[in-house]
Order: sequence, then C-alpha cells, then structure tokens
Amino acid sequence: MATKCRAVAQIIDNPRESTEDMINNTARTHSDGGVLTPTELTHLHAWWRAANYLSVGQIYLMDNPLLREPLQPEHIKPRLLGHWGTTPGLNFIYAHLNRSIIKRDLNMIYIMGPGHGGPGPVAAGWLEGTYSETYPDVGQDLEGMKQLFKQFSFPGGIPSHVAPETPGSIHEGGELGYALSHAYGAAFDNPDLIVAAVVGDGEAETGPLAASWHSNKFMNPARDGAVLPILHLNGYKIASPTVLARIDHDELDDLLRGYGHTPYYVEGHDPEQMHQDFARALDTCLDDIREIQHRARESGETERPRWPMIVLRSPKGWTGPAEVDGQDVEGSWRSHQVPFSAARENDSHRKILEDWLRSYRPEELFDDSGEPVEEVRILHPPGDRRMSANPHANGGTLLRDLRIPDFRDYAVPVEQPGTGQVEATRVLGQMLRDILATNLHNFRVFAPDENNSNRLTAVLEATDRAWNVGTVPGDDHLARDGRVMEILSEHTCQGWLEGYLLTGRHGFFSCYEAFIHIVDSMFNQHAKWLDTTNGIPWRRPIASLNYLVTSHVWRQDHNGFSHQDPGFIDHVLNKKPEVIRVYLPPDANTLLSVADHCLRSRQYVNVIVAGKQPQLQYLDMDDAIVHCTKGIGIWDWASTHPDTEPDVVLGCAGDVPTMETLAAVDLLRSHFPDLSIRVVNVVDLLRLQHESEGPHGLSDTDFDALFTTDKPVIFAYHGYPWLIHRLTYRRTNHGNFHVHGFREEGTTTTPFDMCVLNRIDRFHLAMAVIDRVPRLKDVSATVREKFKNALIEHHQYIRTHGEDMPEISNWQWSAVPGPGLRCEQEAREEPV
Amino acid sequence: MATKCRAVAQIIDNPRESTEDMINNTARTHSDGGVLTPTELTHLHAWWRAANYLSVGQIYLMDNPLLREPLQPEHIKPRLLGHWGTTPGLNFIYAHLNRSIIKRDLNMIYIMGPGHGGPGPVAAGWLEGTYSETYPDVGQDLEGMKQLFKQFSFPGGIPSHVAPETPGSIHEGGELGYALSHAYGAAFDNPDLIVAAVVGDGEAETGPLAASWHSNKFMNPARDGAVLPILHLNGYKIASPTVLARIDHDELDDLLRGYGHTPYYVEGHDPEQMHQDFARALDTCLDDIREIQHRARESGETERPRWPMIVLRSPKGWTGPAEVDGQDVEGSWRSHQVPFSAARENDSHRKILEDWLRSYRPEELFDDSGEPVEEVRILHPPGDRRMSANPHANGGTLLRDLRIPDFRDYAVPVEQPGTGQVEATRVLGQMLRDILATNLHNFRVFAPDENNSNRLTAVLEATDRAWNVGTVPGDDHLARDGRVMEILSEHTCQGWLEGYLLTGRHGFFSCYEAFIHIVDSMFNQHAKWLDTTNGIPWRRPIASLNYLVTSHVWRQDHNGFSHQDPGFIDHVLNKKPEVIRVYLPPDANTLLSVADHCLRSRQYVNVIVAGKQPQLQYLDMDDAIVHCTKGIGIWDWASTHPDTEPDVVLGCAGDVPTMETLAAVDLLRSHFPDLSIRVVNVVDLLRLQHESEGPHGLSDTDFDALFTTDKPVIFAYHGYPWLIHRLTYRRTNHGNFHVHGFREEGTTTTPFDMCVLNRIDRFHLAMAVIDRVPRLKDVSATVREKFKNALIEHHQYIRTHGEDMPEISNWQWSAVPGPGLRCEQEAREEPV
Repeated sequence: MATKCRAVAQIIDNPRESTEDMINNTARTHSDGGVLTPTELTHLHAWWRAANYLSVGQIYLMDNPLLREPLQPEHIKPRLLGHWGTTPGLNFIYAHLNRSIIKRDLNMIYIMGPGHGGPGPVAAGWLEGTYSETYPDVGQDLEGMKQLFKQFSFPGGIPSHVAPETPGSIHEGGELGYALSHAYGAAFDNPDLIVAAVVGDGEAETGPLAASWHSNKFMNPARDGAVLPILHLNGYKIASPTVLARIDHDELDDLLRGYGHTPYYVEGHDPEQMHQDFARALDTCLDDIREIQHRARESGETERPRWPMIVLRSPKGWTGPAEVDGQDVEGSWRSHQVPFSAARENDSHRKILEDWLRSYRPEELFDDSGEPVEEVRILHPPGDRRMSANPHANGGTLLRDLRIPDFRDYAVPVEQPGTGQVEATRVLGQMLRDILATNLHNFRVFAPDENNSNRLTAVLEATDRAWNVGTVPGDDHLARDGRVMEILSEHTCQGWLEGYLLTGRHGFFSCYEAFIHIVDSMFNQHAKWLDTTNGIPWRRPIASLNYLVTSHVWRQDHNGFSHQDPGFIDHVLNKKPEVIRVYLPPDANTLLSVADHCLRSRQYVNVIVAGKQPQLQYLDMDDAIVHCTKGIGIWDWASTHPDTEPDVVLGCAGDVPTMETLAAVDLLRSHFPDLSIRVVNVVDLLRLQHESEGPHGLSDTDFDALFTTDKPVIFAYHGYPWLIHRLTYRRTNHGNFHVHGFREEGTTTTPFDMCVLNRIDRFHLAMAVIDRVPRLKDVSATVREKFKNALIEHHQYIRTHGEDMPEISNWQWSAVPGPGLRCEQEAREEPV
Repeated sequence: MATKCRAVAQIIDNPRESTEDMINNTARTHSDGGVLTPTELTHLHAWWRAANYLSVGQIYLMDNPLLREPLQPEHIKPRLLGHWGTTPGLNFIYAHLNRSIIKRDLNMIYIMGPGHGGPGPVAAGWLEGTYSETYPDVGQDLEGMKQLFKQFSFPGGIPSHVAPETPGSIHEGGELGYALSHAYGAAFDNPDLIVAAVVGDGEAETGPLAASWHSNKFMNPARDGAVLPILHLNGYKIASPTVLARIDHDELDDLLRGYGHTPYYVEGHDPEQMHQDFARALDTCLDDIREIQHRARESGETERPRWPMIVLRSPKGWTGPAEVDGQDVEGSWRSHQVPFSAARENDSHRKILEDWLRSYRPEELFDDSGEPVEEVRILHPPGDRRMSANPHANGGTLLRDLRIPDFRDYAVPVEQPGTGQVEATRVLGQMLRDILATNLHNFRVFAPDENNSNRLTAVLEATDRAWNVGTVPGDDHLARDGRVMEILSEHTCQGWLEGYLLTGRHGFFSCYEAFIHIVDSMFNQHAKWLDTTNGIPWRRPIASLNYLVTSHVWRQDHNGFSHQDPGFIDHVLNKKPEVIRVYLPPDANTLLSVADHCLRSRQYVNVIVAGKQPQLQYLDMDDAIVHCTKGIGIWDWASTHPDTEPDVVLGCAGDVPTMETLAAVDLLRSHFPDLSIRVVNVVDLLRLQHESEGPHGLSDTDFDALFTTDKPVIFAYHGYPWLIHRLTYRRTNHGNFHVHGFREEGTTTTPFDMCVLNRIDRFHLAMAVIDRVPRLKDVSATVREKFKNALIEHHQYIRTHGEDMPEISNWQWSAVPGPGLRCEQEAREEPV
C-alpha cells in the first residue's frame, strides 16, 4: 500500500512535455487502446494547461499576466493567499467533463467539495467566457486577465474559495462535508441533469460527507438525475495524510462498494496516461449512467442500481514545482496553499515561479490580445451547456412559484378562544400534503425520521417516503418515487434541501428543536450564501429554507434535559436580519398563516417554532391572518379593561408561554378585577427589534404603543430569556421588561412542571405581576401566598400521580367575560 | 435481501420457552457445537428475562411490581413514556458481556449508542446491585423494585435515556452519533480496557457516527485498549426502516470491511440459537482482540490490525407482544417507544401487558423479597468488574492531576507594552509540548488537521500525530504511538476528547473559530452532562473540556466570509454559568496564564479565543498573572490621566479589539491631550455578568468602579456586539455602553479593513469617543474629518496594494509617555 502511495506522492519528474511529444505519444496510446484521439488529447491538455496557468496566476500575480516581460517583484502580489494543492485536479476533471458534455450534449453541473481550490473554477469560467459575460470588467483579454489575477483574494475582490461570486457554483467550499448531499439535492427531480461531485479525501473524513454516501438509496433513477461522485485522493490535508488515500486498495474498494457504488480507478501522474485513463473511466461511468436510466425509464427496472463513481489518485499540487529549497512540493502537503511565499522578495523563488508559469507555455494558449486560442476554446460547450453558465447553478433563474392551496381552507374553527385542543403541526401536515400533491416536481419535505413524530403524518397521503433499498410487509409508506425525504442525519437532510433549493426548487424541513443545532454550521454557511448573493445582481433569488422546529423544549416529557434546547433561535439571530425570520405561532391557524408566508418567500431562512402536542387554540382564521400580518399585537380579548391605560403588559411568544400567560390573566382577573392587563402576543420575533436594525423591526412609536413607556412588562418567552432583552434593550421601556424563559432548568417531568421549573408558569407570571404593579404589592400578600401554595400542591401531586393536576392540564380560557374583560365579540369587531 | 429482512422483521412466534425445553434443546445445541453449556445458556437466558422484565416494568408499572396480584389499572402509570424497541437487544448483549467478563476477568465498559433504551442499563445496574449501592432508596427488594419502576420517566425520577444518573454510563443516549467516538476516546491509553459499543442502525445513519468508524486507524493496539463495535440491526428507526438493515449482506459486509473491521454476524430471533451464536461470535472477537494485542505487545507487530466487530440482527422489540389490535409489534417500528398505550384504560391491552410481563416468568427470577435469585445473580461479575460499577465509567474517580510545568517559564519578555510581535498560540504550543512530554498516559491534544495551522507546531517535538495507516517518505510526524489526534472531523475529535475526559483523563482541542459550530450540539450535550453530574454526588468531577478557538474571525485574510463566525461564544453562554468559562487573552502571556488555569480546572467547558497571527504583546508575565487572576482590569499604563475621573472608558475583549483600542487611545491622546481615557481589558468574559447570575460575575460595586456609573463606555469586542449588552444590561451604566463587534460584515480583505468594515478599528473607536464625550463634540470636527480621511485613504491604498498601509500594520504603542500618559514604570509599581 505504502508503495502505491509513494508512487503517486513522490512524483517529481516533469509532467509537462511539448505538444509535439504529446501528439506522438498519444498516437501510440490511442492505437494501444486509449480512448482519446491525438487531437482530443492535445485539446484536453491545452485546456488543462491554460486553466492551471490562470490558477497559478491568480494566486501569485498582479501584473504582467502573460509574462510578456521578465517577472519582476512588483508583478507579484504582496500578500500571497489561496490554495494551489487541489486546483490542478479540479481543472483536470473540468477539462474532461467539458469533453463529455460536448460529445454527449450533457446537461451537467460540477460541485467541487475541495472548494478552497477556488482559482480553478474561476479560471474555467474565464476561459469559457462566462466570467466576462458576468463581470464585464474582467474581459477576455490581457487587461481582463490582469484583473482576474489581481482580484483573487484581494481587497474588493473575490474569495479564494468557490463562492457565490463564482459562476457555475452552488457550493461554497469553505466548510467541508456537503459536496455529496448538495449534489443529490441538485439531482432530485432533475432527470436530465448529471451532477459531477468531487469529494476531496480531506472532506471525506468529515461526518456529514461520510453519511451522505448513502444518499444513493434515496435516488430514483426513473425520476431523478444522476450524481457522479469523483473521490479525489491527492493524499494530504493541510499537513497530514488522508485516511482514504492511505488505506490499501482492497479496503477502499470494499468501502466504496459498501456505499453502493461501482468504483473506477484512475491513478498516476503522467498527464498523457492520466488523460487517457480518466477519459476512459468517465466514458464508462456516463455509459453506465445512461444504461441505468434507460433500464429504469424504458424497461421499468426497479432494482436499486449500483451507480458508478471515479477514484482519481493524483499528486497534490500536480504540475507544480517538484521541489523548493530542497523540499518536496508537488505530491506533498506543502502544496496545500501557496507552495512558496517569497517570490516577491527572493530571486530564486521568483525564478521558480516564472519557470513554473512558463512550463504551461502560455504563449501557445493565449493569443496576442490575451484571449484563449481556438485549440483551447474548442473544449467549451455552447451557451448554457457550459458548467459555468448552467442555469441549474443559478437556481433562481429556474424557480417557479409553488402552487399553494388557500391555507384558509385548513383553518381550525375557533368559536371561543383558548378552548379546543388541537395538534397544530398535524393541521399543517394537511396543507403540506396538498402542496405535495399539486407540486410534483419541485417540492419535497425533509426530516430526520421525525415526519410522523412531528405529526406531519398527512403528507404520506399524498406521497411516500423516498426509499430505494427494498421493502418488506409492514413497512409504512416507502416508495422509490416518494417525496418525503427521511434519513436519520440532520446533515444529510439539510444538505439535500440546500442542493434542492439552490437549483431552483422548494422545500420544508421539520426537526426536533434540540437537535437542529446539529446543523448550526450548515445554517451559517447557507445564511452567508444568501446574504452574499443579495449583493450579486446576476444571482436570482431562490426559495427560502424553511425550518419547522418542533418537539420543543417545553414538551420533552420523557426525553428530558438532553432534548431541551431552544438556542437555535439565538444562533439564527446572529446572522443578518435581511436573510432570517423567526416565527412563533401560538396555535394552528397562526401556524398555517405563517407557513403559507414562508413557503412563498425568497432568500430567507425561516424558522418556525411550533409544538406538536395538543394545545389550546386562540384565533379564528381571520384574526390569525391579521395577527400574523402584523406579527405582533395586542390581544384585546385576553386583556382586561382594554380601553384603559394598562397597569401591566403581559407579553408572550411561543405556544406554551402564550397559554401560561393567558392562564395568568385568568388568575389575576379573578383576584384583582380592577387590574388593567394588556396581553401582547408576538408571532414574528423580529418585530421586537428596532426598525433601524432590520426590515421587520418596529419603530419606537409602534413599540411604545404596545408595551408602554413606563409600565411593567412581564414577558413569557419560548427560549432563553436574554434574547428578548437583546432585541429590546434600546427601547424606552426596556428597564421595565421582566422576561421569563428557559434557563436550562430541565429534567424529565410533566409539561406544567417544566414551566414551573423555569418560572414561565401561570403562578410565577402572576406573582411577577403582583410584585411589579405597585398598587398590588400591598394588597396581595394572601393571593401571592395562595399561588405559592398552589405550586407546592402541584409539585406534591405530580410526584404521586406522575401527571399534572387536572385543573392545570384541563385549564381553558373562560369564554364568559369576567370582570373587566371585554367580551369576545366586541374584540372581533375591531381587530388590532 | 428483502427475504432476509423479512425473516427477522416478521418474527411473531413465541420466543419464550420453558426452562425445561430450553435446557433440553440446549443440550442438543451444545453437542452440535454450541459454545454454551446448558447451564450457561439457562443462566444467560434467565438474566436476560430478568432484565427484560424489569425494563417493561419501568415503562409501564408504578405498583404491583412482581405481579403478585392481578394487574389493575391503578398499577399502571398514567403517562406511559420510554423506549422499548432497542432495550431487549441491549439487555441481550449485556448478559453476554457479563458472561465474558466473568470467564475472562475482563475490564470492560459498555457504551450504548441507542441510549434511549434507558430501561436496559438501569435494570442491569439494579440486578447487579450497583443501583441500590448508588441509590439506597432503590433497594434490591420488592419496595425497591416498585421505586425503580415508578421513578422511570416520572417527575422527580430519572430520564428515559441512558444518562448521567445511570451507573456505568459515560454516554447520554439522547442525541445520536457519538457511540464510537466516545468508545475510542475511552479506549485510548487504557491498554487493559475493552469498550463494547453498540451502534444502533438508526444512529449509524448520522454523519458523526459514519465518520467515526475510521477511528480504528488512530488506535495503537500496543498502548490503547480495544473497542468492540456491535452494530445492532433491529431494522427500524422511529417509523422508517434503516439503511444498513436493508442493504444486502454483501454490501453491508463490504462496508464494514471497508471500515477496516472483520465482521461476525449473529442473525435471527430464536433465543436459544441466538444465545449460542452470539456467545460464539463474542468469544471469537475477544480471542481476536487478545491475539491482536498480543501480537502488538509481545511480538512487536506494527501492521494495523483488522479489529473484529459483531453485527447483531434481531427483531425490534424482541420478546415483546407479537401483535396488538391486529398490528405487528415485535419486529416492527411500532415497538420503538411504548408498544401500546391504553393499558390503564383498556382491559384487553392490560391483559396483553400482563401476559407479556408474565411471559418472562418473574416468579422464577426474583425471590419472595424481590431480590434476584442465584440463577440470575451468577451472571454478575464481582465488584468493579460489573459494568455498572466500572470506575472508568465514573472517570473522576480515576482522574489524576496533570503534571504542568510552570507556565511562567514560557513567558514572552515584554519590555515595553504594545511593541514586539509574537504568535501567541505558538508560545502556547511550547507549554503543551512539555505537558505532553511529562504526561505520557493521560493527556492528548486534538484538532481537525489544524494543529500546525494553529501554530501549535511545537507539540510535535514531544510526540507525533497518531497514525496507524502506513507512512511514506515526506510524511510529517506520524506515528502509531503519537498523541496528537488529528482527523478532519470536528465531530470525531470532540467525541474522542469527551470519551477521554469522561474516563478520567485530560485534553485540549484546538479548532478554527468558525467551524467549532460543527460541534455546537455535542457541546450542548457535554455541558448538560456536566451540569447534571454537578448534582449527582457519586459522580466525581472530571477534567474540563478545553477549547482553543483560533484562526478567528478577524484574520481570515483569504478564507473570507465563510470562515468568519465568532458565535460559538454566544452558543456557549446559553448554558449554565456553573459549567462554562470563556477567556479572551489579548497576548501570549495572558494566554499562557489562562491555559494553565483551564488545564487545572474541573467540570467546566473552557473556551479560549486567541489568534494565531503575530500580534503585539502587552503584559509581562507578572502583570499577566495579576490581570488573568482578576479576569478584568483597568490598564493604567494605557490610560491617560489615570489618577483622574475618566471622561470615557474604552473597554476591550479579544486580541484584535485590544490592539485597536490601544491604537485609538494613541490617536486620541495625540489630539486631545487633556482627555482622560480609561482602558479596561476583559480576559474572563463572565466577569461582566452580575454576581447573581454566575460564579464569576462582578458585584455592581466592582463593575461600577471599572466602568463608572455615568461615563460613556466604548467597548470593542471580539464577537457579536449584543453579547456584551446581554452580559451588562442590568448594570447601572449600561445605557452608556456602545459596543463595537462583528456584525457579519465580512469579506476577503486585509486584517485592518475587516476591523474597519465592522467599525472596531482605531478610527471608528476614536470617532465614537468624540461623539460621546460632550466636551469634545464641539471642538473635534476637524479631527473627526481627519479620521474619516484616513479611512478613505486606507481603503484606496489596500485596493491598489493589497495590504494594509505600513503605518497601520506597523503601529506600535509608544513607550514614551505622551501628554497625560502615565509612564510604564509608574504603572508597574501599582498593578491594578
């Protein structure tokens, strides 16, 4: 095994031969069974040289782009940044994919897992002309090339990774692990698309990537496109070797077959041989794919196919300098970033750089004006077939609106607020069911095996779970053609969904609240992608990424502390307000209204937090629409003496906090009939923010009108309490805000006891009111004592009976207006 | 394939035969080559029945534990919670491991990936007596059994998962994915330990688990213990089948061999046959392990071994009711949680429950007092050999202090503050090197291939990177015996480290700041574990989990926006202040002091944020110790007119913000010599918190003394600015806090420009001072204009030259006291 690795790792002979030699040698190879004609080989090699030249140029040069004068220090960038190691491999593959696209008229995009090889696809896009079409200031000429070089990893320029700025990319390559899940997401429901996905051998060590190999069990060759994984073994990560490059061939082969693939190996360093071998392997794979699709589409074959894949083993920093200062560079980890850094200061390093650049013979590749010569351009597919211009990589251009049924049709009747119990997510499931039924090719739902647990069961009436691994009697709704995507991997679900959205489709992800943190980092990257693309005019808006976060912190009756974490909202709020939205609908009708809004939106990450347990319903659909449209509002019907200045404001956000707030009002009005209580419910959390801080923020005037400028505000919040302070700390009345929320006081207990532990229960809220309303303080000692006793009594009760006292769990809002309570009808007439 | 699955999934015959039948059949089996004698088989089966009985009892019963009277509704819990499906499999394995422990005198712990099968290990611990030793109120008698049953998933009781409360566990089973990485972490440096690790087939779909199979490439059989993975295919997750249970045998076999294992298969449902088969497979595996260790330890074998593993394919909910209400239960996903819920209300369900419980024949398993009979107890290893009592699963009992050299020996000389440039993490690397050298068996460092990138290079002088996959010339510091743990998987690094710490050792994890979010969820679970164990007296404190978060947001010169995220601190601060610490040392000496403190601490998660780039140094070691001990303090030497009441306070936390703050002071004092500026630097972020909110919080008196009660405070912070508001919003002077921090204004640019974009640069800070100090406002128009011009000039400069203006990047603190600046010597005499 070591010998084989060394053979690749230790390459130091010169892989760059003259065109004449190449042609002569190729003639031999071709007659020996090579698949490439001498001309094809020449073109492939010329294109690869051109792309490599432009890649090195981006990393090193800021002037003299075609070396038409001797290389001087001032031509070299003062700060050398970027990654060379993976780039020639990415370029090599690009060249070959282009050949196949032209030959077979393929619709193909290219996902580069080792996206830090950013110079590669930028070079390719420039060669193909897309770059200059997209960025006219970077023309396909000498001046444009100079600009191309200078802008790379330069202030005001482009990142060193494959990025939103890179034409043809749907995959930011900074954080590793998502190449395959993005690729599969792109291929779902795109029967004509082939997604070539390079997996770096570093990336292959990550968990998300390791899990995503199994995505092939969720592909339907009859309906979906194809993913062609190309595992690129260049042997090293930043400093260490990679696991997959060092296990022996048989072990690697077992692994890849165990993932369900048929691997084809291309190993070596000699360009000519590698061109022939790769072309042959790629031809075989594309033949296999065509055959698989034919069998599934024409012959009705239903067996899961063994999809082909390629293993490309080539030196890291291939075609780079063999050694610098006596140390190996090509084939070594030293090629990972900038292979040598003193090219500006050190004459011998500059000489190495110049020799390296000239070894690609740029004078043969670019004409006088700097434009690529015909021999290079011949490898460019026409128009949208160019991978750098494929519309699937700018999904917004393909995006069509969802056909969404009228969400009001799913309304839960609410005759009296705060009475009937409904599982809100179950109602939402019915709406999602009908969206699935009417959008057969551009909408899917995703969940880590929690779809039913989250009560979205109705979706299975419209479709099945995607499953292509065989079924047995007793299985529930599995089908090759299913559109409910369930794998017990939040990473894979998120990656699939991102790939699906980025290629112009729609989706919905439901997840347990505590475990959505598993994809915190993926959320970060997607939010940053959206934020960046908002500033890129040619990137068209894509559908929002919609999370339903459920099975939430307040109802982990048996899962306990490990399942109690409402912090995803905090995490999300660290990103730009322009790209994130957080909704906390308190009941089913508000959930429907919010979901409808989210599914229609573009360029956001929408987080909807809603419980799946039976819970009280408050608003009929008309009121729900008004309330959700405002995002925040006074609930007159739940307030006492609503026409008077309030003594206290009770704020609430989230289903359980809303219920406890109303129960607190109930307690208070029975004891203090004269107390004027205002209830403010928040659905759209970012309404709390100041208008200067985000597009949904309220003005101070509006905020003060809701929360007053001087009255105590007792705020019951779904998550960690300080988030409400963060959102409101600049408000006039912030000093009077007292927020109750989750404080990591979790355990295995009853629903109400969870609230008590964290003091968002009705009694603690009512006591907080008593403590903050000056005129109650003196008269309320006995009431306060009564509440305390109730808590003790409840505590004793649950330890005996294991469930909440009936008067707690069966509590409902009284429909009969109590003292000072405006009756429900009146409130309806003037919705606030 | 489908047929094979069906064979297992469709088992509905009765697996519970009489003891007599069992013995008779076994005699036959044993003579046919079964490894178990009839007596052994009887004992194994009796123990399994007992554990299963106790498991079902926990889920369903609150009284009548041994069914000594007919089962009545009131014996059944009102709320039925818990997971049955995986439990009998866990119990089955437990019984067999016990047999092997006794037979071979093994030192073994048991990690249960499907930890929601919590009733299993609780039952086992109770049978083994450990539970009653640990919790005397749950005695090994009838009353104790009743308590055991009632407490499960009951208010005031225990969670339904394997949890910190469970004796013998180091692995909370709520969030899936970490069974193998925890197991390997436990096995490192424990040559005599065998860690049996059950991987559920649901968990096997997660990314972290998928990646962690490759942990075997980092094991040294000569020095480390062994991990025995047991892949438990019970076919279903919550509602869907599992991928690994449905791919065909050959594909699964390829996969597991590709992971580097030799798998042994035990498949079926007939208990007798399964006992024989599992015993045989386990014997084989343990023989293999002994042989591997012997070869490595006695014969000097250095080839990486193929470690054995077991695949156990058995029905979900094995031995549970075959069907309920006409629907399959055993062998179906319906067994996942509580197989049927109406046992209290519905007579026929209660009858099913009673039959089910009685099918285990409890009267044969427990004596009159409720104690397990001898036939059951015979399967219990003695004392600490019981897996429920193994000290490795209560690592604090084994924890020894690290031998830490005097950190002052690594001090960087600082003659004049704010002058010399040092890479702080490189200095820390020297200290870590010597800790590695002097703690050869209980300290390791972990990084996702970023050790060198993070400048901890010196550690490789003391040891190598752990690597057991073969090496080639040119490799850098790889060895089977290495103690630097590098795999490109944050999940695996974190899992290894957790397993290592939980078994009583020490460790240090360095990671890029942006990508530490990858383990957000793992951090959550570990912090919750620590928080919970703080309340469990028999759990002894373990070493803290230490993160060095580096390659931080302010220095992503080429990686750009995708690598810019300082939000891990925010995430961490959502957990209990009792278990988390966050440090932002501004230079090398403070970093050394902080690291020393963290490495000595217990039961915390310590997050140290420090850049790896060359940066100015401020404090000599004596001052650094004083400053770090206080955690926050006035820097008199950097303040102007320090003996007067300040006009303004400049707060700073983090290396880059500190530098920019000092540069702002420099600007201000040159323009406004009379201005009294106080500089307050924060190392220990939680000092900002109020003392009532956490153990490191300052009193209001102390806080006000630093930040005044009424002067403007311009605070430059490393991360998202609102965190400082969150920590200080209750302080007297909070209304005057103006925090500058990262606002997601990121891009590929120069270091200083990153600061400018986010307004934490010297000019913006100085302008903020001008704007907030009333007496400056009128006189400062020209100065403000000058600063603005400087920003414009800089912006133009970097777009031409690609690097910061020399006067920016070369800026140093002037040692010569300027007007109003106390000279450095004076400051030294009275450190604050």
